[in-house]
Amino acid sequence: MARDPKYDVLFEQVQIGPKTLKNRFYQVPHCIGAGSEKPGMQAYHRGMKAEGGWAGICTEYCSIHPESDDTSRVSARIWDEGDVRNLAAMCDLLHEHRALAGIELWYGGPHAPCMETRHTPRGPSQIASDFELNTFPRYMDKDDIETLQQMYVDAAIRSREAGFDIVYVYGAHAYLPFQFLSPYYNRRTDEYGGSFENRARFWRESLYKVREAVGDDCAIASRFAVDHLMGPVSIEAKKDGARFVEHCDDLVDLWDFTVGDIAEWGQNAGPSRFFEENHEKPYSGTIKPGNHTNKPVVGVGRVTNPDTMVAIVRSGQFDIIGAARPSISDPFLPKKIEEGRFDDIRECIGCNQCISRWEIGGPPLVCTQNATAGEEYRRGWHPEKFHPAGNREKSVLVVGAGPAGMECAMVLGKRQMEAVHLIEAGPEIGGCVNWISLLGHSDGKANLHRGTARGLGEWKRIVNYRQIQLDKLRNVEVHTNSRLTSEDVFSYGAEIVIVATGCHFATDGLNAATHAPIPGADASLDWQMTPDEVALGTKQVGKRVLVLENEGYFMGASIAQKLAGEGHDVTLVTQAGEIAGYMEYTLEAPMLHRDLHRVGVDIQVYTMLDRIEPGVCHAYNIWDPDHKQAFEVDSVVLCTARLSDDQLYREIKGDQGRLEQEGIEAVYVIGDAAAPRMIVDSVFDGHRLGREIDSPNPEMPLPFIRERRLWGETSNEDYVRQLANTADVALV
Amino acid sequence: MARDPKYDVLFEQVQIGPKTLKNRFYQVPHCIGAGSEKPGMQAYHRGMKAEGGWAGICTEYCSIHPESDDTSRVSARIWDEGDVRNLAAMCDLLHEHRALAGIELWYGGPHAPCMETRHTPRGPSQIASDFELNTFPRYMDKDDIETLQQMYVDAAIRSREAGFDIVYVYGAHAYLPFQFLSPYYNRRTDEYGGSFENRARFWRESLYKVREAVGDDCAIASRFAVDHLMGPVSIEAKKDGARFVEHCDDLVDLWDFTVGDIAEWGQNAGPSRFFEENHEKPYSGTIKPGNHTNKPVVGVGRVTNPDTMVAIVRSGQFDIIGAARPSISDPFLPKKIEEGRFDDIRECIGCNQCISRWEIGGPPLVCTQNATAGEEYRRGWHPEKFHPAGNREKSVLVVGAGPAGMECAMVLGKRQMEAVHLIEAGPEIGGCVNWISLLGHSDGKANLHRGTARGLGEWKRIVNYRQIQLDKLRNVEVHTNSRLTSEDVFSYGAEIVIVATGCHFATDGLNAATHAPIPGADASLDWQMTPDEVALGTKQVGKRVLVLENEGYFMGASIAQKLAGEGHDVTLVTQAGEIAGYMEYTLEAPMLHRDLHRVGVDIQVYTMLDRIEPGVCHAYNIWDPDHKQAFEVDSVVLCTARLSDDQLYREIKGDQGRLEQEGIEAVYVIGDAAAPRMIVDSVFDGHRLGREIDSPNPEMPLPFIRERRLWGETSNEDYVRQLANTADVALV
Repeated sequence: MARDPKYDVLFEQVQIGPKTLKNRFYQVPHCIGAGSEKPGMQAYHRGMKAEGGWAGICTEYCSIHPESDDTSRVSARIWDEGDVRNLAAMCDLLHEHRALAGIELWYGGPHAPCMETRHTPRGPSQIASDFELNTFPRYMDKDDIETLQQMYVDAAIRSREAGFDIVYVYGAHAYLPFQFLSPYYNRRTDEYGGSFENRARFWRESLYKVREAVGDDCAIASRFAVDHLMGPVSIEAKKDGARFVEHCDDLVDLWDFTVGDIAEWGQNAGPSRFFEENHEKPYSGTIKPGNHTNKPVVGVGRVTNPDTMVAIVRSGQFDIIGAARPSISDPFLPKKIEEGRFDDIRECIGCNQCISRWEIGGPPLVCTQNATAGEEYRRGWHPEKFHPAGNREKSVLVVGAGPAGMECAMVLGKRQMEAVHLIEAGPEIGGCVNWISLLGHSDGKANLHRGTARGLGEWKRIVNYRQIQLDKLRNVEVHTNSRLTSEDVFSYGAEIVIVATGCHFATDGLNAATHAPIPGADASLDWQMTPDEVALGTKQVGKRVLVLENEGYFMGASIAQKLAGEGHDVTLVTQAGEIAGYMEYTLEAPMLHRDLHRVGVDIQVYTMLDRIEPGVCHAYNIWDPDHKQAFEVDSVVLCTARLSDDQLYREIKGDQGRLEQEGIEAVYVIGDAAAPRMIVDSVFDGHRLGREIDSPNPEMPLPFIRERRLWGETSNEDYVRQLANTADVALV
Repeated sequence: MARDPKYDVLFEQVQIGPKTLKNRFYQVPHCIGAGSEKPGMQAYHRGMKAEGGWAGICTEYCSIHPESDDTSRVSARIWDEGDVRNLAAMCDLLHEHRALAGIELWYGGPHAPCMETRHTPRGPSQIASDFELNTFPRYMDKDDIETLQQMYVDAAIRSREAGFDIVYVYGAHAYLPFQFLSPYYNRRTDEYGGSFENRARFWRESLYKVREAVGDDCAIASRFAVDHLMGPVSIEAKKDGARFVEHCDDLVDLWDFTVGDIAEWGQNAGPSRFFEENHEKPYSGTIKPGNHTNKPVVGVGRVTNPDTMVAIVRSGQFDIIGAARPSISDPFLPKKIEEGRFDDIRECIGCNQCISRWEIGGPPLVCTQNATAGEEYRRGWHPEKFHPAGNREKSVLVVGAGPAGMECAMVLGKRQMEAVHLIEAGPEIGGCVNWISLLGHSDGKANLHRGTARGLGEWKRIVNYRQIQLDKLRNVEVHTNSRLTSEDVFSYGAEIVIVATGCHFATDGLNAATHAPIPGADASLDWQMTPDEVALGTKQVGKRVLVLENEGYFMGASIAQKLAGEGHDVTLVTQAGEIAGYMEYTLEAPMLHRDLHRVGVDIQVYTMLDRIEPGVCHAYNIWDPDHKQAFEVDSVVLCTARLSDDQLYREIKGDQGRLEQEGIEAVYVIGDAAAPRMIVDSVFDGHRLGREIDSPNPEMPLPFIRERRLWGETSNEDYVRQLANTADVALV
């Protein structure tokens, strides 16, 4: 299909210093868990986007020196020749696709605890990080300032050597250059503190030095949070934000604008639950229209809609469409727009599962929409290419069209299995997504710092994308309103059966805290209920509600938020020290806490129920079981355990004789039906089985490439030996 | 010095199946952050203990299959030939010192979230982990049980190939075999659930199969929590604990006993704050004396006292002295006992910093007492060997004898610097340790699940060890009660000056939460104070006290605990979601919470002060600054920011002319005087400078070996390619 001329503007070239972006699509720096330690993952994840049409693609934050070490979180590093070699793999792959490679040079100061290197970070003033509470920087005197700036220069030179086209001096998310600029961090009284010019000096000098060193060969970029969102105590877009851009405009070839800081960076990487598409416009979108810069500007805001992109460029908000999460969800977004394949775009749902793994520190990134994210190298998966299955003549029955079943059937269809039937008991496909996407609202009021509790409606994209793909696959038949018994399955005529029947909430209070049901818990009663019943409105909820949340993710908190928003008196009880702990990792927690506070939810932590009686819940403090508390209630919501709906699987698998008789060669169980899990993992599980349906043992995932040193290989020992010419370092 | 015959018993051989331990010292499995991915660190950390005299030395928990993946926490893995190669490096090094190598084969079930491999863990019943809240296992049918047992067998065979002498089937800390044994996890109704024999079946069968596979060549061990410490709902030492040992005694060559589980494993790795030496005796110490086993038993309990060790063996409590933390703190503990060098033993202080890094996931282990722990390979440091410094003719002045200064002077002394002077302003060396070690008590009552708030007295060992070592070093002079001015330093006659003058608490409420002082905060007033003033009793504390804690480690909570224990009404306020968050990582948190709850501390989270007035603290909720609260108080304790005492350093360093004139060639600042930090990091900082005092630029730490794949090296790609002979896996 040819491109609609309306979108031509997105495919114009943009000059940035000595380099040319071939179009306006740009993957801004974002983490993936590869760093410089997993060069294959780094190269192939970024390279997939180059193949998908992005003109500029960056590393994650890349440390310039061991003094800026964010372990346990994974950053890239360009400390030595080994890092140059590892990051060059990424540059080479990008260049094969005529994409530019960008590197975000990073020094964290007090936000980087240096738990691997054990160095001491330096900062403009000695104030502990508000992100890593107990990490204090060493005060930088003028020697330190010079040393630090030389670190940026040395790193820039190594970056050029690795093949990078764009070199960032990274000052967003409240890292070092921003710490000098902002009076929130900078309390100096010398020429690097006080007045605007003084506070801007470190950043300006660093840009100047980096430009002097590599500016003829590389474009110089800077990432800048134009507004710290803290009001007058720090940088505001209308004041020092705009002013700083003017002040340093001569030294950059590309501005990359964001908002906020690292302590609450969900204000930048806004979850869809609270932030809509292009949500940074009121801040980062004002600089270019205000004529504060003559240089190209890239900005972000979870933009996935091509019309929004055109509006952004045409209105002069940004010159370049920046994306982190949308490029993970669909590495081929530019190509699909170019080819007019809009309905093939896998739109980011803004769940921030990708980010959660960086926050946890160590695991590779994951993506709810794109199960191949992070798997490009180690499992060799391509988001758009599917090899025909070796056993494609086999007929496949997939029972259950939730996240795992939809994904598996789609992958099998794309792998050209000749006949795939996806059978759903309910009236539509989507499974739990259909009711979960109704949650996330409270009373719709908007005064939560920024944004509002807009709900999880965008999560419905999980279903929409797969619905469209399934509709296109002529080898896949989808049937709804069809609940299969084991007898139905046996007689269906399929050779491979995949059970994806999901899970249900325990009705007896079985939970992770005590591993036991709760006496008196019974969701078959009118006044007790499970979360899905609340979401779907199938039960009447009384005025006083107790919500018991034992799982630590969004469910209990979302139910409490909804009910309190509707005017109920809600008590939210958890055995944990905080409600919804995992939402810290998805960056949803601060906004959630604001909303729960605002709608008046009474949160009781370290608390568990030991008995439910009509009208009263008996609780105890987990640190002192004798410390009791009684809550008078009209209703109880049990966000306790989930249990697999695996009866069908057990029945089928248990009758080997019948399986043989009916010619069923294999039975698999996937997703929540195997074990309840997060949606991102259900999608992965379905995808994985589809990818490996023709492997020797499809039930067991194939090995993947582990990027690690093998004993006897070199690593950087030779390099270190060279440097360490002192008597005391007896390198082994 | 010859060994006192009293300790001969510790050096007797112990036969374990086909292998012989050369003495009774045994490093039980413990984490270090190396896993199978950093083979050098793994080999050299364990190898150092072999050199130090330990007869048996184990890996950390070692995963048998990608289905048991604990990422972000680091475990060892024996999944493939690459792991065999990497772990063989450890075995080889151990064998050079005639030590036996043990491997702890581990399958985590629901406790292992599989965030790297993305597999689905399996468990006996489908109950989510109480450690990883939202991780549900897949219910194991009989095919699964067979598959799992084969995983143990395959891993055991690979272990033998790598050179391991002792192969564990690991069932402590509530991992898979224990999950079958305990009714807390096992709700099966088939022959693997219900009766004791049924619940024990999985474990017994697994031991049998592993023994059949490798039992002629390797000793078979099992680690077993003899008491889950949950009462009748799970395993109790006197009932199923003892019974299980009897039931499987024929299948093991060595029992390794512990208590508790992974969700609160501080009950096993007991911090000194709550648990005394040999604290597991009432549980794991009852099995052997109760004649429930005929096999050798190893057990732990932070035992560092040789007399306790002798008593343990002589009383029949254990046959073998197990150690994790004491072996980190002093890898040469056996050798030192053997040589009668008792005063050289670096005793573990039970601070659990080592454990904190495993809990955080990713960083290498650290040790407050032994700065070389984890640095054996990558920095080439040996805890007992010190190369003479290349510049040993230089005279060195170390100002300040806190953790950093003491350590640095000691290392310089051991490196044979000809003249080292350590000058302390106070009446004794030790710095902040002297008052911090007074904390950690409440009212001395003992009803905290187990143990009691015994205080941080053992932390004083930081000082004791260094005092003794300094006393022995004839090239180091220590002077106390001597506060040096910059003029004193200039005229001292030293060629190298090291400033280690520590830090102080802010008196104006400057803090990490707001980066600003708090209006009205003023610790120069009688009724406001800093933590050290409370610890030392230098100020009168009123009845109603508010403790503001902004740092997230032990200080604020310890002050609250102490004051409440003394009868004050204490409100503990923090901006964070939990008080003392870092104490989760040190495993101190559960016991701390019990104690704070018991002594009635009122904890206010997500709360910050915006103003202090005589008799009243004005607070706000951080999620809603308009939500105010006022606390009427008699006293306020400000556990807010710390600030380096770096004035002396700045004065000296700032006068280059005078430095040259006086022949001072270098000035360094270390420890809290450079930047406030945890004690473990101050000790490291002092040690590091001592080790590198003769490097080209001692201020900047030398590079260390980074164990990583370099692009172009093999990794396990060939191996994976071999296995992945399917059409869809297009390995790159």
